Amino acid sequence: MSRRRGFLEALSRLREEKRSILCVGLDPALPRQRGRNVIRPPAGGLDESDARLGFCLDIVRSVEDYAVAAKPNQQYIFGFTVGQHRRLTREIGKRGMVSILDYKLNDIGDTVRSAMFWIKECGYDAVTLNPLPGNLAEAVRSAHEGRYLGVIVLTLMSNPEAERYLKGATVDSEPLYMAIARGVRESGADGCVVGATGHVSASDIRSIRAAVGDDRVLLVPGIGAQRGDPEKAIRWGGENVLINVGRAIIYSDSPRERAAEYSRMFNEIRRGLGC
Amino acid sequence: MSRRRGFLEALSRLREEKRSILCVGLDPALPRQRGRNVIRPPAGGLDESDARLGFCLDIVRSVEDYAVAAKPNQQYIFGFTVGQHRRLTREIGKRGMVSILDYKLNDIGDTVRSAMFWIKECGYDAVTLNPLPGNLAEAVRSAHEGRYLGVIVLTLMSNPEAERYLKGATVDSEPLYMAIARGVRESGADGCVVGATGHVSASDIRSIRAAVGDDRVLLVPGIGAQRGDPEKAIRWGGENVLINVGRAIIYSDSPRERAAEYSRMFNEIRRGLGC
Repeated sequence: MSRRRGFLEALSRLREEKRSILCVGLDPALPRQRGRNVIRPPAGGLDESDARLGFCLDIVRSVEDYAVAAKPNQQYIFGFTVGQHRRLTREIGKRGMVSILDYKLNDIGDTVRSAMFWIKECGYDAVTLNPLPGNLAEAVRSAHEGRYLGVIVLTLMSNPEAERYLKGATVDSEPLYMAIARGVRESGADGCVVGATGHVSASDIRSIRAAVGDDRVLLVPGIGAQRGDPEKAIRWGGENVLINVGRAIIYSDSPRERAAEYSRMFNEIRRGLGC
Repeated sequence: MSRRRGFLEALSRLREEKRSILCVGLDPALPRQRGRNVIRPPAGGLDESDARLGFCLDIVRSVEDYAVAAKPNQQYIFGFTVGQHRRLTREIGKRGMVSILDYKLNDIGDTVRSAMFWIKECGYDAVTLNPLPGNLAEAVRSAHEGRYLGVIVLTLMSNPEAERYLKGATVDSEPLYMAIARGVRESGADGCVVGATGHVSASDIRSIRAAVGDDRVLLVPGIGAQRGDPEKAIRWGGENVLINVGRAIIYSDSPRERAAEYSRMFNEIRRGLGC
């Protein structure tokens, strides 16, 4: 994963081998944190971080035949030590997936470099980044130098404020999300996070794909528990798409079977579209 | 700190007691991370997180007479356990400062609630938040319910991309940063992060203050090592301003003396302006 474009090459190879575009979102919540969609209570003197790590490792092993990527979310693994992150990324790699830290980094200067230092130490293959108001080019340079870390940039999300700010706001008379998509291409970032529900239309996804080129990955969250639209994402996102499913797999009775079902569903859509 | 507006009340009381508007930025970098502005190498079998924590605790004790807030940055304390965060926030509180986690949170739904859960567990008094493309109202509600956590919202930063995106982009024919400032007021958030260098003008700061009202805090980074303009921030930000100095204090030969100097300088400016 240390070569230029290592992340996208690894992902493309895994997609071929496993015939899958499934990314599994790892969001381990404690029972004392909320009412449902939680992990089992820590037992046998296990501390809460080890319990969350154990849950993630079990999921990774369960879905290995059907997923090409795993995406732990920082807001759920808050408090992991570097060693715990490493155990997680090592297992993800061993099971034939790339590891994407969903971190939504948005700092500048020395501070963004410090984040990249630690995220590389943890062994991740890629990180998500919020381009507002940080310096995208500087962040990508810092991620790509030395050990290569892929950068996937929040480009157009499906929540209502994203419609107001990312679509409604204009820069040089184009919507802000298109300025971001152009920034992704210019900075050499590895891909975009793009919603597929609510206000995000087929034409939005097509415009982003046209702006970033075919070689960048579009990571599409909001499928499964959030009821996204995988067909829209696959039809207009093209070959290089990664579809994230979180809760609907990880909190199901059988993560392995659900992962198989989602992967099959995505492949049927792809076949139907002649991908 | 559990009552409504507990954060702003505590800050205002400390500002009176200590006659200071100084916030100290805690950015502990390891020697193997970069060439300069680093902590001493971990000695005596101390691990790297304990070494960074020890550095932060020493700084907090050194500056206690002159600072009313301490702002650890997530990108430098990456890998801290909840227990390490707690030791840090407890010391900050004991030394008569509020603790602001510079985290630039930007998630939505269950995910932002999970982040707030953990940040409250760590004992922080406030957190920084990037309102793009997250849902500000939802994030603030989640921070304020239960144990009160203040929310300080990135509103206008001084880096070049912020000029392009936050000032150059327009929503309903006003600059994006003004839509954000209005969102701060409407959502009941506790303050704004506002740069004071580069493209950020006196008039920008004045407009933000007018939009959010006098009771919210403006947290101004970029003074010291980043050569900001404290007079501009103090003149136009009004009474309720917190000025952050990081590297110029924490990596100096005498953090205590530097903190005293900065605090004195800010007070002289305030006196000169009749604050």
